[in-house]
Amino acid sequence: MDWQQIFATRNNRMKASEIRELLKLLDQPDIISFAGGIPDPDLFPAQAFQEAFSDALTPQNQATALQYSVSEGYGPLRDWIVEEMARLGVPCTRDNILITSGSQQALDYLGKLFLSPGDTALVGWPTYLGALGAFNAYEPRYDRLDPETNRSAADYAKEAGEGRVKFAYMSVDFANPTGKTLDHAMRERVIDLADALDIAVIEDAAYQSLRYEGEALAPVLAREIERKGDINACRTIYCGSFSKTLAPGLRVGWVCGAQQVISQLVLLKQAADLHSSTINQMAIATVARAQFDSHVTKIKAAYSARRDRMLAALEAHMPEGVTWTRPEGGMFVWLELPKQINSADLLARSLESERVAFVPGHAFFADGSGSNTLRLSFSRTNEALIDEGVARLGRLIAAA
Amino acid sequence: MDWQQIFATRNNRMKASEIRELLKLLDQPDIISFAGGIPDPDLFPAQAFQEAFSDALTPQNQATALQYSVSEGYGPLRDWIVEEMARLGVPCTRDNILITSGSQQALDYLGKLFLSPGDTALVGWPTYLGALGAFNAYEPRYDRLDPETNRSAADYAKEAGEGRVKFAYMSVDFANPTGKTLDHAMRERVIDLADALDIAVIEDAAYQSLRYEGEALAPVLAREIERKGDINACRTIYCGSFSKTLAPGLRVGWVCGAQQVISQLVLLKQAADLHSSTINQMAIATVARAQFDSHVTKIKAAYSARRDRMLAALEAHMPEGVTWTRPEGGMFVWLELPKQINSADLLARSLESERVAFVPGHAFFADGSGSNTLRLSFSRTNEALIDEGVARLGRLIAAA
Repeated sequence: MDWQQIFATRNNRMKASEIRELLKLLDQPDIISFAGGIPDPDLFPAQAFQEAFSDALTPQNQATALQYSVSEGYGPLRDWIVEEMARLGVPCTRDNILITSGSQQALDYLGKLFLSPGDTALVGWPTYLGALGAFNAYEPRYDRLDPETNRSAADYAKEAGEGRVKFAYMSVDFANPTGKTLDHAMRERVIDLADALDIAVIEDAAYQSLRYEGEALAPVLAREIERKGDINACRTIYCGSFSKTLAPGLRVGWVCGAQQVISQLVLLKQAADLHSSTINQMAIATVARAQFDSHVTKIKAAYSARRDRMLAALEAHMPEGVTWTRPEGGMFVWLELPKQINSADLLARSLESERVAFVPGHAFFADGSGSNTLRLSFSRTNEALIDEGVARLGRLIAAA
Repeated sequence: MDWQQIFATRNNRMKASEIRELLKLLDQPDIISFAGGIPDPDLFPAQAFQEAFSDALTPQNQATALQYSVSEGYGPLRDWIVEEMARLGVPCTRDNILITSGSQQALDYLGKLFLSPGDTALVGWPTYLGALGAFNAYEPRYDRLDPETNRSAADYAKEAGEGRVKFAYMSVDFANPTGKTLDHAMRERVIDLADALDIAVIEDAAYQSLRYEGEALAPVLAREIERKGDINACRTIYCGSFSKTLAPGLRVGWVCGAQQVISQLVLLKQAADLHSSTINQMAIATVARAQFDSHVTKIKAAYSARRDRMLAALEAHMPEGVTWTRPEGGMFVWLELPKQINSADLLARSLESERVAFVPGHAFFADGSGSNTLRLSFSRTNEALIDEGVARLGRLIAAA
């Protein structure tokens, strides 16, 4: 049977993620891996989850925990998120919150909500690879979102051709893959642009809680509420996640936005998977309520020390001509190599001779550029190995 | 902001599910509900899940249980499913299995895999409402799959117009909503038709394990393997679920099919939600391994008695002119009322005067017909209430 000829056209754009393939390498014990970008399992609040799952399965709770539940999500978890969003400067109610199976699912549903084939999504060059993967299923065009230029709304609209610009997507804090944070002025500019184009803004806040230095910046959504008075009048849709703070294996994230958006997303979710795991939502609610802040403080201390070590190692070991970002949080440092060095080739050599893994940067570019860039994650590697791995990488780049 | 004008066109087809709205009524204690179609929570193997989650969170397992995992699914669970599929007459390997977040998600991904706007999906008249919901997001046309007629492949192909017929979808055992089972000859005919049209067959087996009488029929996939020798040469894609046997709240189901289909679905899943909850897959694997058969035997005894009681009550209380199915398993009985009775109007009156809930049948028809049909579920109502509820309903219909 020739399956290709009956697959829908969107499948032409669905390719294996290089990052996911690379994750397999993490299991080889002699590899020093700066690939991935996944939490350190030694930092999971496992004891708290043990108690939370046990509590969800007591005779009093088990009929709820194991049963179907509403597509919107578990009420007490949505209530905790309402409180958390208020702390971030986003006053809202339960009706502004949808629970998703990780924020990856939020990106899938937002692509489904907005994109018809040929519509345009504005994304960074580079941007989160998983966002491109999620959106690709809806066959959009991409245009470069670059608030630092003075490119006009009319120019963006013109580039969209037959379709229409539907949203601007961005990770604003310690972005994956660059580690960069969008400053106040740029956040305002994105709102201006979105207002002018009459499009949505998708604010991916997966790393928002992991700030190691400097002052927290108000989310784009918070800034828009300040302008417009009410979340239901706002075009920014905030995507949060428990994957980087508590645990990714439970697949729990959320979307916070205008009620009209949330209620349509609820319909999409109902049709797509009915609801996210009931018991996992209950367990996350329990653990978040008991110790979100104290747990996040603990993991920030660990990740922050690793970031410091990686930045020091880069300073010590990288040859002339290599530049890198200095993230104030998150899990990533982004390197730019001299133009002539192809980071995918470098990875192949690195795995062979140096046994160091990283992610070549070009997959993060919707236009396939960025062949001289790469992403390093410091989240899962201990400090001595960070030093050793960066030293090996520096040696390899110097010889390239 | 006028959201409607930037939502993708597919949203015009995403409507609130009547069943999900009705589920809210189940919480009112004086309603006798035959709506829903959800398992009885008193039958959940809660103690076994308590132990399984506890085991997943021991120091030895917690780093796996709480971490990201591969999109294909948890290996030991896929292995258990391989054994289960072999028992059903479907020899396969791990590479033929994808774990999904319930079989609802499998339907969403299969719609995504096959359907471009305007393509045709063949479905029963009536069919599972949730399948229509999942497929609607991909903007198909529907044509009536009716293997009992001698309609030719050429005729189906012609009806597809500009698009192409992509698959035949059907629930084969004790189908939702009719409770009917497709017999051997009809299963063969569907394979013939699919061969002639060169399309996929989606076999929804959500209720397969819940047979209360009669001999189990080989799945369509098993019959096709008998013809073609190897699952990888087959066009049938089998969707299984733990929601009706162990617990729906964990959201764990699976797809079993040709490797080429599974590997493309893995890419779609990777882009859509990375993977299903790791800890839930581990817990399901543990409970299935320990007691799937004995647990299913136990719940079958309970549901079977309720089915018997409902059939007896229908016999005793339904007026002339009402007909119904006699399911050999599952959770549903399907009623046809005299043509002039509209079951949606009947429901409104029933909730007001008789306090009995059911699902009006028209939502299960892709063409919106079936206004004189309704679905009763016997899965969550005790036997005395079944008798009382059917008596009230019979009285109401007799007066209509």
